[in-house]
Amino acid sequence: MSLMLSVGARVRKSPFFSSARKAGLAAASVYNHMYMPTSYGDPAAEYDRLVNGVAMWDVAVERQVALKGPDALKLARLLTPRNLDGLTIGQGKYVPICNYDGVIINDPVLLLVDDDEIWLSIADSDIVLWASAIAGAHKMNVRVFEPDVSPLAIQGPKSADVVAALFGDWVKELRYFGFRVTELQGIPLVVARSGWSKQGGFELYLRDGSRGAELWDLVAKAGAAYGIGPGTPNYVERLESGLISYGADTDDRTNPFELGMDNFINLDQPHDFIGKPALQAIKAAGVSRRFIGLLIDGAPFKGGNEHRWDVTLNGAYAGFASACAYSPRVQSNIGVGMVSTEAIAASDGVAIVTDDGILPARTASFPLI
Amino acid sequence: MSLMLSVGARVRKSPFFSSARKAGLAAASVYNHMYMPTSYGDPAAEYDRLVNGVAMWDVAVERQVALKGPDALKLARLLTPRNLDGLTIGQGKYVPICNYDGVIINDPVLLLVDDDEIWLSIADSDIVLWASAIAGAHKMNVRVFEPDVSPLAIQGPKSADVVAALFGDWVKELRYFGFRVTELQGIPLVVARSGWSKQGGFELYLRDGSRGAELWDLVAKAGAAYGIGPGTPNYVERLESGLISYGADTDDRTNPFELGMDNFINLDQPHDFIGKPALQAIKAAGVSRRFIGLLIDGAPFKGGNEHRWDVTLNGAYAGFASACAYSPRVQSNIGVGMVSTEAIAASDGVAIVTDDGILPARTASFPLI
Repeated sequence: MSLMLSVGARVRKSPFFSSARKAGLAAASVYNHMYMPTSYGDPAAEYDRLVNGVAMWDVAVERQVALKGPDALKLARLLTPRNLDGLTIGQGKYVPICNYDGVIINDPVLLLVDDDEIWLSIADSDIVLWASAIAGAHKMNVRVFEPDVSPLAIQGPKSADVVAALFGDWVKELRYFGFRVTELQGIPLVVARSGWSKQGGFELYLRDGSRGAELWDLVAKAGAAYGIGPGTPNYVERLESGLISYGADTDDRTNPFELGMDNFINLDQPHDFIGKPALQAIKAAGVSRRFIGLLIDGAPFKGGNEHRWDVTLNGAYAGFASACAYSPRVQSNIGVGMVSTEAIAASDGVAIVTDDGILPARTASFPLI
Repeated sequence: MSLMLSVGARVRKSPFFSSARKAGLAAASVYNHMYMPTSYGDPAAEYDRLVNGVAMWDVAVERQVALKGPDALKLARLLTPRNLDGLTIGQGKYVPICNYDGVIINDPVLLLVDDDEIWLSIADSDIVLWASAIAGAHKMNVRVFEPDVSPLAIQGPKSADVVAALFGDWVKELRYFGFRVTELQGIPLVVARSGWSKQGGFELYLRDGSRGAELWDLVAKAGAAYGIGPGTPNYVERLESGLISYGADTDDRTNPFELGMDNFINLDQPHDFIGKPALQAIKAAGVSRRFIGLLIDGAPFKGGNEHRWDVTLNGAYAGFASACAYSPRVQSNIGVGMVSTEAIAASDGVAIVTDDGILPARTASFPLI
C-alpha cells in the first residue's frame, strides 16, 4: 500500500528540485528538512548507470554546516574524535561526531575551505544546533550557520570524463575528498572528489541556490555523450559497498567502534574532544555488536524492507538488518545491519526475520561484491 | 505532478503507523525523522470532523525530549526565555526556544512530569542535540534523551466526550496544557488537554511504543458513538486559527517577537537564559516584519501551495506567504505568512504572487474565522 508524499512549504526544496521533477522524479523522502529524491521510477536503469556508466544526483540534502571565524578549527577539534592535525586547505576528511556519551550523532565529511572556514557536509541530524550550542556555551569566536551550498553528485566509472569535460583534466588529479573552489560559466561552486558510492565520482557544491537549474543543465549536456542520466543515492550499491546510512544503520546508542570507525577515533591525540572519556571506556570494554554485511537466502527480494528486520542466532534476537535488497552483481539477496559479535563469529544458525518468513543468512565483510 | 513517498528503515515509524495505514492513510511527510500522516484522502471530511465532530490524529512525530535529573529545571530555565517560576507538576507551558542570536529554533510545550523530570514536546528540529550540548558543555547533572512517548491527539468539539468516556469526567476539569499521568486498561500514558487545533482537544501520550495499535483501537471504539474518524494536523484549520508551524512560517533569522510571542519572552526575569542579550537588542530595535493572516482574492484554491509565495506591497517584495488554502468557513482564500510591518499597516496595495498569477490580498489578525 503506497503513500503519497505531501509537498508544502515546511520542507525545503533543493535548488535542483524543479530540474529533478522535470527529469521524471518519481519518489522522494525527507532528509535534513529537505526533499530528497529517491527514485526516477526505473531502479534497474539507475543501478546500471551508476555501476557501468555515469549518473547525476540531486544530493542538496547533504547540507553544509559552516564554522567561520578565528575559532573555527578549535571548534571542529572539539566536535570530532578524529585528529585534525596536518589538515590543509582543499582537503576533506571523514569525521564522526559523537555526543558526550560517545554515541554517534552524525558522520560528515569536513572540508577545510579557508584558514578560518570549515564546512561539515552532514548526514541527517541538526548539527547546526549541536555545533552552535557548543560554540555558544564555550563563548567561542566563531559563527555557525548553514551557507547557501547544495551538492550535485556525478557518480559512476565515467564520472571523471564528464567532470573533466566541464572543468578540465585537473579534476582527475584530485585526491579522494580533495576539492577546489572554482566556477563554471560564472556559477560559483566547489568541485570535490567524493560521493556516496564506491563507483568513483565527484560532487559539485553549488554556491548560489538561484542557479540550480543552470548547473543541472550544464552537467546533463556535458554528460550526454557518456549516457548520463538522473539517479539518487543507490539503495542496492550502498549495501554492496557497505556504506553507512546514519539513521538507518544507527540507533540512539550506536558508538563509532560498532561502525568500524576505529581509524577515525584518535583517543591518544593531544587535543581534547567531546565524548573522549566515554569513548575510552567503550573501547576498553569492547563492542558487543558490529555493522556487518549479510547474504540472505531465498527468492530475490522485489524491493527494500520498510522497517528493520530482526537478525537471529539459533532463534534468539541477535541484532537488526537495516536495509536489504537483491543484488544483481552478487546474485543474491544482501543486506547490512548491526549484529552481535557472537552471531558474526557463528558458522551457522543466523537468520533474518522478514515480513514474509524467516530466511537463513550469513554475515560477510564489505564489500559484498 | 505527484510524488511517491519512499518508506524505509531510515525514517522512523510511529507506534500508530500500522493502524493509520489500515485506516486508509493516503499521504505523509517526515517530521522529527518520523513519518507524519498528512491525509486520509478526503480533506473535506477530515476538516468537517475536526470543526464539527471529533477526529483522532497520529501525532507521534511530536517527539518528547526528556530532561531528567537534579539539574532538569536549571537546564530548562537556560533553554527558554519564558519564566518558569511557579510551574507545578501536571502543568504544561508553551516555551519558545531561541539560539544565542535570539533566533527561534523550536516552540515546544514543556511538561513538568516530576520534580526532576521535564518533557519538551517539540516541533521539527533536533532539540535533543541542542539541549544535550548545553547540558554537557555546562557539566550539568541531567540526562537528556528521547523517551518512548508518542502522542495520539483527539481533537474537535466532541473530543471531551470521547476522552471522558475513556477516562472519566475528571478529564473535563483539566486546564489547558494541564495533564495527568495515568493508564488505560494497563497501557501507561499521559492525558493532556492540548493539541494543534483551536477546536478543543486532548493528547494521549502513549508511554509504551509496543501498544500503539491497542490504544488506537480503544480510542476508535470509544469514539464510534461520536462519529470519530482519522485525521491529521489540519492544513486549513491551522490557517484559520493562526497556529504557528515551525519550519514553514519561520526561517533562519525568525525571532519570537516577529511571531507575536511577546508574552512568552520574559526579559526581566531574575534567571539567565540563552539568547537574552540578543533578544533585548531585538526588542529595543523593534521588528520589521510579523506573522500575520492573509485574506486572498480569486477563485477558491484547489489545494495548498508547494512553496512559499511572495507577498508584495505595491509590487515590491514585502514578505512571504507560507501556507494558503480555501477556507469553507471564511468563504475565502486565506493564508499565513511573515509580512513587513509596512505592508501590514497599508490599507491597500498588498498582493500574493501565486504560481498562477498575482492576487490582491489583505492582512488580517487571527483568528481569521
